[in-house]
Amino acid sequence: MSNRPPGDNAPPLGSVASKITGPLGIIAGRGLLPCVLAEAASARGLPLHIVAIRGEAPEEIERFPHTWIRWVEVGKLFAALDDNGCNDLVIIGGVNRPDLVNVKFDLAGLKALPFIFSLSKGGDDHVLSRIVRYLEDKGYRVHGAGDVAPDLLAGVGRLGNKTPSADDRADIEVGFKVVSALGRLDIGQAAVVAKGHVLAVEAAEGTDAMLVRCAELRRSGRTGRHTHAGVLVKAPKPGQEERVDLPTIGPDTVRNAAAAGLAGIAVAADRVLVAERAAAIETADRLGLFLVGENLPSASDGP
Amino acid sequence: MSNRPPGDNAPPLGSVASKITGPLGIIAGRGLLPCVLAEAASARGLPLHIVAIRGEAPEEIERFPHTWIRWVEVGKLFAALDDNGCNDLVIIGGVNRPDLVNVKFDLAGLKALPFIFSLSKGGDDHVLSRIVRYLEDKGYRVHGAGDVAPDLLAGVGRLGNKTPSADDRADIEVGFKVVSALGRLDIGQAAVVAKGHVLAVEAAEGTDAMLVRCAELRRSGRTGRHTHAGVLVKAPKPGQEERVDLPTIGPDTVRNAAAAGLAGIAVAADRVLVAERAAAIETADRLGLFLVGENLPSASDGP
Repeated sequence: MSNRPPGDNAPPLGSVASKITGPLGIIAGRGLLPCVLAEAASARGLPLHIVAIRGEAPEEIERFPHTWIRWVEVGKLFAALDDNGCNDLVIIGGVNRPDLVNVKFDLAGLKALPFIFSLSKGGDDHVLSRIVRYLEDKGYRVHGAGDVAPDLLAGVGRLGNKTPSADDRADIEVGFKVVSALGRLDIGQAAVVAKGHVLAVEAAEGTDAMLVRCAELRRSGRTGRHTHAGVLVKAPKPGQEERVDLPTIGPDTVRNAAAAGLAGIAVAADRVLVAERAAAIETADRLGLFLVGENLPSASDGP
Repeated sequence: MSNRPPGDNAPPLGSVASKITGPLGIIAGRGLLPCVLAEAASARGLPLHIVAIRGEAPEEIERFPHTWIRWVEVGKLFAALDDNGCNDLVIIGGVNRPDLVNVKFDLAGLKALPFIFSLSKGGDDHVLSRIVRYLEDKGYRVHGAGDVAPDLLAGVGRLGNKTPSADDRADIEVGFKVVSALGRLDIGQAAVVAKGHVLAVEAAEGTDAMLVRCAELRRSGRTGRHTHAGVLVKAPKPGQEERVDLPTIGPDTVRNAAAAGLAGIAVAADRVLVAERAAAIETADRLGLFLVGENLPSASDGP
């Protein structure tokens, strides 16, 4: 569908982004990350076009060149990408599974129907891998957000002022073990561990809902009343399609972790996005939480 | 501490309970199960004494011979058991971890302090295994509720009218795989799977809270709007102390599963307690849910 030659007017880019040869297509879901990514790409002089999913992407994306589409308007998606010369794509921001009962399919959507219905089964990772493969089959190149804007990723080491204690370190270790086991089953990307005890495990509800639950458990006295004990651990699933669905933390994550009485947050270094990095760090420092990126011991689980 | 000879006035009992040689001590936590067990023991002519944990056990236990104790009143616990000739114990009903800040220790409790503090670390299974070992070291025999009242356990096959569909069977299989993986990490005993997708995983919040979350996910449209799709799966952890902490379902579990739009509930046969069996089955039939006990393929994971 897309057969443009590599854009020869592409601006000079850093080594990571140098393989992006034409205008960047950003398929945008929920949250602030699509805008943050668009800003980072603009700052590098990379032309871009956002294809925003209605009901998911925020209005703020209208600051950038954009096209709104509905889920399953596959023809409109391809037209928006091709009309703007976007062979290179980043898919960013959460999306809900399409509710296939109340949608109007366009022609390309109807042709893609067997594919779309195949998405309604299986875990998130399965779904996202299939979407990436589908787009690649159509000739697009799909990149990770970190390829375009490495600053979006949490690096190795602490992001704020605070460092984990020995007890926190022990909880972090248990947490990464748990998240890795969960990930192998395509379940979730996060867990909360306090004093060696797994308080909560994330599945479809998402990290913020899990942290709210931990705050409730603490208020009800069911998990002890220690404050500044326990960690939120977040990492991609082993073998996950990391170009598309990186775990994300942001200032809200920090606030919710603080409300749950946790000591801090540990994420897999270079494999977790930090939305609103400056605000996230400022919030962690103000609330006394640590925020660290860890090199995972079991990176060999990866693809 | 307890050195009575086997009670020679013990009534004749079924083969399962025949190893119980004297009056039965029931250490009672939350919920209806302590009373149901006491009724089953009484029906078999087994004398009993309930040691009820204040703030946990319901007042209904006062129908039976009983002593109320507080957490960490270890001396009072042993006195109640020994005064009533109870060498054989069943521990039943959930308990919260002791809040060690606001308790008054008795003398035996002070002596047991290092043991009690050791309970504040690690997962539930760790805690319960230690309590059992502690009581066994003192000379008591700890039995499972199913040893005294086999009818409390879900057997193999369906309990109500409805049987799982082929799709449900697939979800059940994924569910048991998930629960087994979680259990190996001493996390939880239950998960919800719908169309191959893990919606929720239980940790410290308990099964009912997990099901309420699934109902919310469904209402918010984040997990599709299929009704009667998906299963709750519940099984003990591999290697778990099954005499003490068997997973439990009851009528509330069925109602919450129905509210979450699930098709039914599958449990590990002979390893999950059914509280209020008749009411649970009636509720399942009325709400159109299946309720099945499954022989786990991976029973070799056990202790």
